Amino acid sequence: MKLAMLNDRIVPIEELDPIYFDRGIYFGDGVYEVLRSYNGKLFALEKHLERFARSLAAVRINSIEIDEIRDRVERAFVTSELPEAKIYFHITRGSAPRNHVWNADLEPNFYLTVSDVPDSSQEKAAGIAVSTHPDWRWKRCDIKSLNLLANVLARQDATEKGYDEAILVDDTGLITEGAGSAFFAVTGETLQTAPLTANVLPSITREYVIEAAQNIGMKVVEESLTPQQAVSADELFIAVTTKDVVPVVKFDETTIGDGVPGPRTQSLAEAFLTFTV
Amino acid sequence: MKLAMLNDRIVPIEELDPIYFDRGIYFGDGVYEVLRSYNGKLFALEKHLERFARSLAAVRINSIEIDEIRDRVERAFVTSELPEAKIYFHITRGSAPRNHVWNADLEPNFYLTVSDVPDSSQEKAAGIAVSTHPDWRWKRCDIKSLNLLANVLARQDATEKGYDEAILVDDTGLITEGAGSAFFAVTGETLQTAPLTANVLPSITREYVIEAAQNIGMKVVEESLTPQQAVSADELFIAVTTKDVVPVVKFDETTIGDGVPGPRTQSLAEAFLTFTV
Repeated sequence: MKLAMLNDRIVPIEELDPIYFDRGIYFGDGVYEVLRSYNGKLFALEKHLERFARSLAAVRINSIEIDEIRDRVERAFVTSELPEAKIYFHITRGSAPRNHVWNADLEPNFYLTVSDVPDSSQEKAAGIAVSTHPDWRWKRCDIKSLNLLANVLARQDATEKGYDEAILVDDTGLITEGAGSAFFAVTGETLQTAPLTANVLPSITREYVIEAAQNIGMKVVEESLTPQQAVSADELFIAVTTKDVVPVVKFDETTIGDGVPGPRTQSLAEAFLTFTV
Repeated sequence: MKLAMLNDRIVPIEELDPIYFDRGIYFGDGVYEVLRSYNGKLFALEKHLERFARSLAAVRINSIEIDEIRDRVERAFVTSELPEAKIYFHITRGSAPRNHVWNADLEPNFYLTVSDVPDSSQEKAAGIAVSTHPDWRWKRCDIKSLNLLANVLARQDATEKGYDEAILVDDTGLITEGAGSAFFAVTGETLQTAPLTANVLPSITREYVIEAAQNIGMKVVEESLTPQQAVSADELFIAVTTKDVVPVVKFDETTIGDGVPGPRTQSLAEAFLTFTV
């Protein structure tokens, strides 16, 4: 007899909900997006849908209509009636008995949640502390996949040491990005961040930060930094969908600048917000 | 209102089964094992439990009693009445609203299936074909985690090209292992396989193959091979829990030896089986 166990309960395999065979849980075989609204308006929905389509194509989940995803996101957002909404959604390749190889006729599973955007005003006002962690992630971080254990372990490590975010450092000693954010340094009138490669997520917030920097006359350099270069910058910050620009005032043991959010970071945060209205 | 969507159906978030918040699906935040029985007897259960305990410790899921896992595995196996059983089980960190950082009081989720061991007699008799693929996996492949998308994509690529397994090649041009197997080369009386590092799963089948080789007087070298070295070996094979020793007769475009399973691989397969009775 084929059977399954859920905790200490034996169940006939035929009685299990298909969610238990989701390839998302067996393999992390799926891709996701997180977007938010500002004041009742979804921000950068098209860019998130474009990136989602690229992630789907990269893992070869081919049967998805992006127009249908857009409809679902908009319907869920409207139904939630949350003006400051955080929307998470993923698609997995589908549910099937565990086998690395997939059948072409699998029906993908779509899952979405809408919740309030967590308040980050305190973090923005005071700045946050970040700590470095080896970048253990896979070699296709350009795909926004459900394989996130390396990110989880890095973030947890930072949290337990009293830091707010982990900054990932690759084997060659270069910073790639944060465990859940893009990472930036400001020196004089220059904004620096890692270039987009297979080891970095093409962050949409990063894209807007770069545009904001150009709008306020800053020079933008897409070149990786070492931790040593980061601590000698004038200002540091991270960028993340749910919080946009968050100043970094401590990097490992080093206080950055005067230990308070810097003026250029503040200008960038304000310039960013003009995109959201 | 907080809400969720399952495919195109909106549901109140409170009505969702906790499985939908499983950190296994959000992050691949869990670890797994696969073991089998031969002729009504579980094989290497203790070694699988030891490795599972190491994986749990590495991802810091700390509240698990291994004795309880052993009881569950044995109970499920006996209940199944399958003499040749394949047992898969995983533990995830638990179910919670999505957040990289975990709460220490999360209740882990245990999931297990028992099914028939797939028949591999044809593969063993004829030998299989393998194709190389870049090793895109994360840097902690010594942990048997649910982050397996790189393995899935590699295996699928091999399958679609008409091959049976993908052999993963790292950035430095060295073979690490198969997408779901350990990889071995035989040259003369020497057996060669990659050493155990953070980039290789400590395969239990590998351990028994090495012991079998020593038992039949072969020399064992734990040193990585390049694909060029692999194709010039006398014999190649993979080792995997559910199939033990499977001869490889084609490596990318190259036929190995005479294109049929070699005599030393056959001897190793026989010596391996003496452990299972």
